[in-house]
Amino acid sequence: MVLKQGVELLLEHLEEQQRGRGRVGRRETPEKMASRIHATAEQLHLEDLQEPCDASMLLDACRVVLDTNPKSGHPLFFNQLYGKPDELGVLGDWLVVAANAHVHTYEAAPAFVVVEKEILDKLARTIGGEYEKEHDGLFVPGGSMGNFYGMLMARHHAQPNLRKTGLHGGPALVAFSSEQSHYSYTKAAAVLGIGTDNMIAVKCDEHGSMVPEELEKAVVRAQQDGKHPFFVGATAGTTVTGAYDPLPSLHMICKKHKLWMHVDGVWGGPVLLSRRHRHLMAGAEHADSIAWCAHKLLGAPTQCAAFITKHGNHLLPCNASAASYLFQPEKCGAAFDPGDKSFMCGRRADMFKLWLMWKHVGDLGMEKIVDVTISMAAAFEELILGSEGKFHLVQPRTYANVCFWYIPRSLRPFRRENASATEMEEIGSITSLLKGKLHEAGDAMINYQSMDGVPNFFRIVFRSHCHLDVQDLQQMLERMDSMGETL
Amino acid sequence: MVLKQGVELLLEHLEEQQRGRGRVGRRETPEKMASRIHATAEQLHLEDLQEPCDASMLLDACRVVLDTNPKSGHPLFFNQLYGKPDELGVLGDWLVVAANAHVHTYEAAPAFVVVEKEILDKLARTIGGEYEKEHDGLFVPGGSMGNFYGMLMARHHAQPNLRKTGLHGGPALVAFSSEQSHYSYTKAAAVLGIGTDNMIAVKCDEHGSMVPEELEKAVVRAQQDGKHPFFVGATAGTTVTGAYDPLPSLHMICKKHKLWMHVDGVWGGPVLLSRRHRHLMAGAEHADSIAWCAHKLLGAPTQCAAFITKHGNHLLPCNASAASYLFQPEKCGAAFDPGDKSFMCGRRADMFKLWLMWKHVGDLGMEKIVDVTISMAAAFEELILGSEGKFHLVQPRTYANVCFWYIPRSLRPFRRENASATEMEEIGSITSLLKGKLHEAGDAMINYQSMDGVPNFFRIVFRSHCHLDVQDLQQMLERMDSMGETL
Repeated sequence: MVLKQGVELLLEHLEEQQRGRGRVGRRETPEKMASRIHATAEQLHLEDLQEPCDASMLLDACRVVLDTNPKSGHPLFFNQLYGKPDELGVLGDWLVVAANAHVHTYEAAPAFVVVEKEILDKLARTIGGEYEKEHDGLFVPGGSMGNFYGMLMARHHAQPNLRKTGLHGGPALVAFSSEQSHYSYTKAAAVLGIGTDNMIAVKCDEHGSMVPEELEKAVVRAQQDGKHPFFVGATAGTTVTGAYDPLPSLHMICKKHKLWMHVDGVWGGPVLLSRRHRHLMAGAEHADSIAWCAHKLLGAPTQCAAFITKHGNHLLPCNASAASYLFQPEKCGAAFDPGDKSFMCGRRADMFKLWLMWKHVGDLGMEKIVDVTISMAAAFEELILGSEGKFHLVQPRTYANVCFWYIPRSLRPFRRENASATEMEEIGSITSLLKGKLHEAGDAMINYQSMDGVPNFFRIVFRSHCHLDVQDLQQMLERMDSMGETL
Repeated sequence: MVLKQGVELLLEHLEEQQRGRGRVGRRETPEKMASRIHATAEQLHLEDLQEPCDASMLLDACRVVLDTNPKSGHPLFFNQLYGKPDELGVLGDWLVVAANAHVHTYEAAPAFVVVEKEILDKLARTIGGEYEKEHDGLFVPGGSMGNFYGMLMARHHAQPNLRKTGLHGGPALVAFSSEQSHYSYTKAAAVLGIGTDNMIAVKCDEHGSMVPEELEKAVVRAQQDGKHPFFVGATAGTTVTGAYDPLPSLHMICKKHKLWMHVDGVWGGPVLLSRRHRHLMAGAEHADSIAWCAHKLLGAPTQCAAFITKHGNHLLPCNASAASYLFQPEKCGAAFDPGDKSFMCGRRADMFKLWLMWKHVGDLGMEKIVDVTISMAAAFEELILGSEGKFHLVQPRTYANVCFWYIPRSLRPFRRENASATEMEEIGSITSLLKGKLHEAGDAMINYQSMDGVPNFFRIVFRSHCHLDVQDLQQMLERMDSMGETL
């Protein structure tokens, strides 16, 4: 059974990352990578007349694929918002593959349907407030889809007839999110027929949080223009800086103007599990809907994202088609069928891995993931502040993101308020150079970006990073500094 | 490492199904199932204050979950359009979990990005025609999303400005699909703001194929009503009967009226891989876009679905947001970044399992899956025809679906044209009773449904069923007959 041999390879890969050995990644061009797979094993290319390949050659190819791919489980992989997959999470996801069940009816996937309900119930109790009384939801393929469902439900709530008649005869609906919000809001506005022009970007303060007064001004302006505001997409944990919008203030504005309030808690929502940090999400319990995700900070394997709403009976009328071939009401457990709440058909059983993880470590264990991760971010922030001017914080940390620049020796001591445009440009361009160097050396993978006139900076994000200590981070900064000297 | 122990369990589960032993499924209420998990191991319930659970208890829970779930890999599981997961497919999917990569940039998932392109290129060559010159596409979370992307691109193609301005001031767009088409078209029309009223169901012939003349009539009628036809969603392999729409005729109508032609080949598209059966998809090469899936007939683990279009440069402008934190154009391999073509953000690397499967068996092996599966359906049809009136075909088979009734002894010999309404009703109600009996006995799982006044009938679908022979089917029918006698 080739699967058995393959599993050995996968377990080895996971254990190696656990120990944090080896390169984080390889910076290879597509051509180089393809040729490496070609050399060691089977070509990446699917031939015009593809012959069968020997299983052992395919195992070699698997080895190269794993080697080529950035080691997202490596302690020094900071490139994306996901990282080392939790061991029980991996088991749960592997089980889902082996069971090969699709979630749409209780009949076809009984345990997964019940587990989905269990997790959503637990999440609702964790959110608290009105969610404890009533809620509904779904696991969805990624956080973007969670925000998409939020806007879709809001549209249906505002204009239930449009589902039937189409939007062309309806009012000009307008949605709002902060200028720092995730791009999925804009994509959703485009796809849902709202239009990107009607997705208003509301100004943020210097931390990246939406300014409530600016929201209200924008809402009133849209009303005066004869448009119909219907949706506010708040953000709990922005992608770049980890900022939280002031949810209680946004809630008051939404209430006053009768707007659907959705919270994008895809990145920052896990703080709900921590007594120490859940204050960041205060007010989320008033939101009409929330997108939440366990595959980022919490370390479930991708994908593991949920959409939840406090409206217990709005998701089905929003999406139902009542297909007679699938949703026969007389079938066993049909009252549990979740499929028709989705605008897709079958969904992967992404909820099961989270159930296993949660059961394994319990509430305190889940809380610890959040607390340890955020304290690691805080420790890293301290390292930057104590780096004697070699590194410079772009802005103070709120959550698990630390944004910073490497300051070339020639520009030290660096004072941002005195820096010239040319100097800022130099700092920005050295960021992307240094990132490339690090990546090439396989040392660490750190993302970077520019933001509204602020030149390129590094963004480190901490996720479920319990196999990392402050010394590792200190050493990484020292190596970055040495590399920086050579640029 | 609990994962190692868990893997043993999963391999055992897969091997057991391979041998076709044991029950296909258990028909248990949600309460019964939860109590069984409770009794053997850990409760399904997530407590208000959830304590950590012992790993060995969780492994027991995994065992119960696998046992409770219908054995989709069992030879006699005919309940859904997916079945036994291919071994290399399982390995590929497990590798994706272990690599924990998300597909959006080349930098973050280099091999998977290149493999996605390889498979889409191969698929394009397999489709042929204009697809060989130019194409674009994405793996998407399920076939429904493939149809969704088709309608989304069509909307953008017809009215590129609506993405920006929203649909409210635009024309009344109208889409068409057959009355036997999958419900995902209707759901897409609702979500995309077209409106379900503007999703016209075109009449089918007695096989379930769209009648081209009816399509043209419907298009002209919509034009006369001042509406704007923009999309025809053809079906290659209907869910219930496996019928194929006459694609060349639909293409002529689409060309004449300048409509986007999309083909839902999610169920029937795999015939493209078979020299013997690809004639069923003739004309698909003219379609503007196609939804295609490897997790149904071809036996890849769920999910493994693709969307492909012959328009090489329309997907990006349709969905792009150019998020600066992710799609930095100067990054290594950035020209390969597929993420911004999607209206989601990261996607699971669903393409890799198909690559491994295809490489393993080659083109001839993939063809064989299609040919053997369809010939098994043909053999089963023969068994029904030769059952001496115990079973009755609802309609002749086209593809891998066989629709039939069990005829109670009292109604034999059965002649449909002479059957009274009461008799048809009896046949319909015995179908759902017999299905329940089979399910309860764990003997076989077969779906059933009614269709436009035709009472409930069994629908058997064959998928990648190489571990099944005609004798198994013969014996299953004999057991159904015996059970039927007791009803």
